[in-house]
Amino acid sequence: MSKFWSSMAKRATPYVPGEQPKEINVLKLNTNENPYPPSPAVASAITEELGKDLRLYPPPNAEDLREVIATTYDVTTENVFVGNGSDEVLAFAFMAFFEPGQTIRFPDITYSFYPVYATLFDIPYETVPVQRDFTLTTESFYQSEGGVIFPNPNAPTSLSLPLEEVKSIVENNPHTVVIVDEAYVDFAQQSAVELVNDYPNLLVVQTTSKSRSLAGLRVGYALGDEQLIQALIRMKDSFNSYTLDRLALAGAIASFKDQTYTEKTIQKIIATRSWITDEMTQLRFHVLPSETNFIFVSHEQYEANTLYNQLKEKNILVRYFDSPPIDQYLRITIGTDEEMQLFLKTLKEIINKLE
Amino acid sequence: MSKFWSSMAKRATPYVPGEQPKEINVLKLNTNENPYPPSPAVASAITEELGKDLRLYPPPNAEDLREVIATTYDVTTENVFVGNGSDEVLAFAFMAFFEPGQTIRFPDITYSFYPVYATLFDIPYETVPVQRDFTLTTESFYQSEGGVIFPNPNAPTSLSLPLEEVKSIVENNPHTVVIVDEAYVDFAQQSAVELVNDYPNLLVVQTTSKSRSLAGLRVGYALGDEQLIQALIRMKDSFNSYTLDRLALAGAIASFKDQTYTEKTIQKIIATRSWITDEMTQLRFHVLPSETNFIFVSHEQYEANTLYNQLKEKNILVRYFDSPPIDQYLRITIGTDEEMQLFLKTLKEIINKLE
Repeated sequence: MSKFWSSMAKRATPYVPGEQPKEINVLKLNTNENPYPPSPAVASAITEELGKDLRLYPPPNAEDLREVIATTYDVTTENVFVGNGSDEVLAFAFMAFFEPGQTIRFPDITYSFYPVYATLFDIPYETVPVQRDFTLTTESFYQSEGGVIFPNPNAPTSLSLPLEEVKSIVENNPHTVVIVDEAYVDFAQQSAVELVNDYPNLLVVQTTSKSRSLAGLRVGYALGDEQLIQALIRMKDSFNSYTLDRLALAGAIASFKDQTYTEKTIQKIIATRSWITDEMTQLRFHVLPSETNFIFVSHEQYEANTLYNQLKEKNILVRYFDSPPIDQYLRITIGTDEEMQLFLKTLKEIINKLE
Repeated sequence: MSKFWSSMAKRATPYVPGEQPKEINVLKLNTNENPYPPSPAVASAITEELGKDLRLYPPPNAEDLREVIATTYDVTTENVFVGNGSDEVLAFAFMAFFEPGQTIRFPDITYSFYPVYATLFDIPYETVPVQRDFTLTTESFYQSEGGVIFPNPNAPTSLSLPLEEVKSIVENNPHTVVIVDEAYVDFAQQSAVELVNDYPNLLVVQTTSKSRSLAGLRVGYALGDEQLIQALIRMKDSFNSYTLDRLALAGAIASFKDQTYTEKTIQKIIATRSWITDEMTQLRFHVLPSETNFIFVSHEQYEANTLYNQLKEKNILVRYFDSPPIDQYLRITIGTDEEMQLFLKTLKEIINKLE
């Protein structure tokens, strides 16, 4: 610490993202990236944009991207906010809707960026314990003083809360904002987007990083009532007028225009997820019923940490969280079939040696 | 306003960027963009990166870009922070170094984003009046309670404060951070970067948007003592792990590797600036001695607002600020020689009609 740091800089407890190894022979199953490339239309659109005016500022309101997202989700452009990845959208949402001094709620097992934002912006929070099977207790989120945020499906558990229960959380917090972080929703059965026109306190946040294979492009978005979107725009325009560069805008627009490709990719990943879930179960892993592009697994016999380290030695990265009650679990991103075969083969070898 | 808005959302007074017209037949001299394209190496590097893994998250610490910037400015990677445009870097700097309750200082005529950040983060500020010729009074910035920020060269005045005076402001604020916003410094004679190793309280912020023609790519950076850079990294990692996408990183790296191109572009703009300054002076405009890629001008006879509107009617956009004491000035970006000839011709026609 330095005497020049503000109290905000001092109290911050930065998020630690998953490793991004420079080695190219590593099988990365640790940060929930999509194993398939983005739609070919993305590269074409970026190449075209590259031939235009990189010297000019991007459109500050990103109208074209907001419009195509609005069309995709059957809402209006005024219901759409776009940002530099869903993390930035979430940061603006914490600023716009949560208040220092008013306690917000999120699950105790959840995306570990939430307490980071809360600490940064001095927003008190209470964590709501998940049940022993990691499902959320809907009622525990009712009547929150300062607001609610949770991922659906949840990370790292991979579990989805049924839409009716999301609705009941929103309905039972009529005076505060409920943020549903749907980073993984395209691999799940239902999204809360269809509720945004009915509830002025519901903000749904999504990303192009997972289902659209654009983690490297940094484009996230939020869908909600026009008044909520206005508040997010106010935050952005008080922070950084242009958060999306010209190439990211062009690429994201192209991706939303090629829904067929996205759908196909999602179906492939869901098929692989189903297959690897069966295989892992046969190896006596407990696999939570995933609605995401990763699985969350535990073994009755082997330490998760041991498996994590031994996989890492074999150049396979998965995610391990060293804190109870999830310290006996591994979060494993769904790769291609070939990648998961390699993963499985390696895992079997490790287990055989451990026995 | 909505009952769901936080006090931060309510008190925010968003920045209003210059117009980005969709029409392509407009001569844009309003947002200080570079009239020349970026180095051809930028497009090549982006095209190459596009063939790689857009599906993967970018490197969160942007080491490669920080390294090439460090080399360019003869500092270490630990002295370099990179962000999504210098606006984002400035936002993180306000968070990291300025404190609610401790009054900061900046000039009364300056970049209009500073009061926006201060209001957003609830940091009190006092504006220091510039002199009648728009120069800064160095001593007025001494012993600030909460810190100091000023652009050098200043915007929209185009004037530069000599390095010795910058140094005296830094030396006379030993307990707070002095942020020198050098967005336009490549068009000036001296940068404060050479001071960063000597003063632990000096942060120099620069951008690729102006001299490097990369406004559309959103890459800014800060140079300073390692402890200051650490604080900025803490802010970023508490807000958004990956603020620069893979293409922006690749493009910016290529730009810094092609210094020759940047130097040439800068020299062309400085030559045009010199020429247009003479021409405008002959038209009886008062032109401030610019060290930027724009000129700040006033006419003894014609209203700035009238000239702004009439130029706009002729599809030429310049920047007009409707508040005293600069409401008789126009800020005009330096375009190519051809563009400035068209501007001048149109301006002469307008003036002739007004006479």
